Amino acid sequence: MISANSNPIGIFDSGLGGLSVMQQLILKMPHEDMIYFGDTARVPYGEKGAKTITRFSKENTEFLIECEAKLIVVACNTASAIALEELEQTFNIPFIGTIEPCAEIAVNVSKNGRIGVLGTKGTINSKAYEKALLRYDPTAVILPIACPLFVPLVEERFTSHQAAKLIVKEYLKPFKESKIDTLILGCTHYSFMKDLIANEIDDHIAILDSATSCAVKTAQMLAHLSLKSPASKPGNYRYYVSDDPEKFSRLGSFFLKKPIQNVQFDIRNGLSVASPALYP
Amino acid sequence: MISANSNPIGIFDSGLGGLSVMQQLILKMPHEDMIYFGDTARVPYGEKGAKTITRFSKENTEFLIECEAKLIVVACNTASAIALEELEQTFNIPFIGTIEPCAEIAVNVSKNGRIGVLGTKGTINSKAYEKALLRYDPTAVILPIACPLFVPLVEERFTSHQAAKLIVKEYLKPFKESKIDTLILGCTHYSFMKDLIANEIDDHIAILDSATSCAVKTAQMLAHLSLKSPASKPGNYRYYVSDDPEKFSRLGSFFLKKPIQNVQFDIRNGLSVASPALYP
Repeated sequence: MISANSNPIGIFDSGLGGLSVMQQLILKMPHEDMIYFGDTARVPYGEKGAKTITRFSKENTEFLIECEAKLIVVACNTASAIALEELEQTFNIPFIGTIEPCAEIAVNVSKNGRIGVLGTKGTINSKAYEKALLRYDPTAVILPIACPLFVPLVEERFTSHQAAKLIVKEYLKPFKESKIDTLILGCTHYSFMKDLIANEIDDHIAILDSATSCAVKTAQMLAHLSLKSPASKPGNYRYYVSDDPEKFSRLGSFFLKKPIQNVQFDIRNGLSVASPALYP
Repeated sequence: MISANSNPIGIFDSGLGGLSVMQQLILKMPHEDMIYFGDTARVPYGEKGAKTITRFSKENTEFLIECEAKLIVVACNTASAIALEELEQTFNIPFIGTIEPCAEIAVNVSKNGRIGVLGTKGTINSKAYEKALLRYDPTAVILPIACPLFVPLVEERFTSHQAAKLIVKEYLKPFKESKIDTLILGCTHYSFMKDLIANEIDDHIAILDSATSCAVKTAQMLAHLSLKSPASKPGNYRYYVSDDPEKFSRLGSFFLKKPIQNVQFDIRNGLSVASPALYP
């Protein structure tokens, strides 16, 4: 029997964006094995209904549990916002989402308590960031904005196009005169829009990325639960996707600026399997 | 036992875009009953792999057959391009796609045999329009362009925004000096970008929409197979979706400029059911 400590960390996202969370997890915990599941056949989650996102999140979790994950990182802000509570109630395994850790850091970083949040429609409509921020600072003033075109712009690599600048300007209009001093990028894709976003807001505004705080919290939780891997060798990484592995490999390599090679195709549980990939 | 003639026409699309096909079907065949299935939980299909799109298309077809459809309209260019042949081989029911009928009209409209095609990556990569056009005119010169940002721009109602104009200009650059005289809008969403597209190309270029030709062909096939409805009253319309019915109702009303009301929620075969809706 394999001890729980040497079991992998399970990570899921609707697609590729969660790779930015995995990148941070690897930086913080280089000896941990990891299994990444990208639900690329049903991506995106951001505009879909709460029942659907919860159902998909449960299916992804079941898959990672079958792969013997010891802890599950919900590396998708939309799924964290909408499904995390129900996942925790349904499955007997520790979960970490992207929202709570980032909210905790944001209230510490903000000096005036005025915090902006960018996210998908699902994340923004759920008010999950607002609820989490108000738990840490009941006097915080939160300005949430849904930016549904950011994900397709990133996936189409249009992030340096003039059209992307205009769309950022349009979405961020409500921040003018808002006096926020902290801005949360509440979707893992939005890191790739960071420069464009920074150009549209005042220089003094701190921009927080949910991937980094999620990785810090995961390391703390593994230590707290005595679940750290005993290994001293570099971690082993497996990638599973529900659509075409080749596209995942190609786009993932672009996102991470590191090749994801040797992606194989297989079927298990009706899902396409891309494994093993050479990463990072 | 219900006779096949009074059974409904089944229509499926990855989401809302196929409503433009249904609109044309209703105009041409006001006495036919229709069942529309929008796979809104897994939308979009355009960027996904061929195996995935074929699997989804088969599931959608099975659902419409269970609903006793007498004929199935694949009201999605991506599914028509990739899955139609396998659907015809798998199921014992007549199918109509969007590509063949539009290609037939395009070669008749074009005077110089130079035809542009806009579509999703899936449609363009499949070369389905090229193959169909060359069957009707082996000397045709075809210029295909994938426009992946058009669907999110339409769904975000950004079609009159300056950013959308810049994106259209960017995608359509290859048409400069191309001397095409006919342009196929090979995705049901693209009708909503028609004005922007028309502004970017020469006035003499004929713009063809796959929805209209698909409806004409459907009417011809019903007559040919003696499957026309005997009814003299207006058709009855049912809508099924795999995600949130409320969003379908709201966005569908925007698309069609007609209210889709009284949408109900139910579960059947793991799908969310929006039915009956008042349409048109």
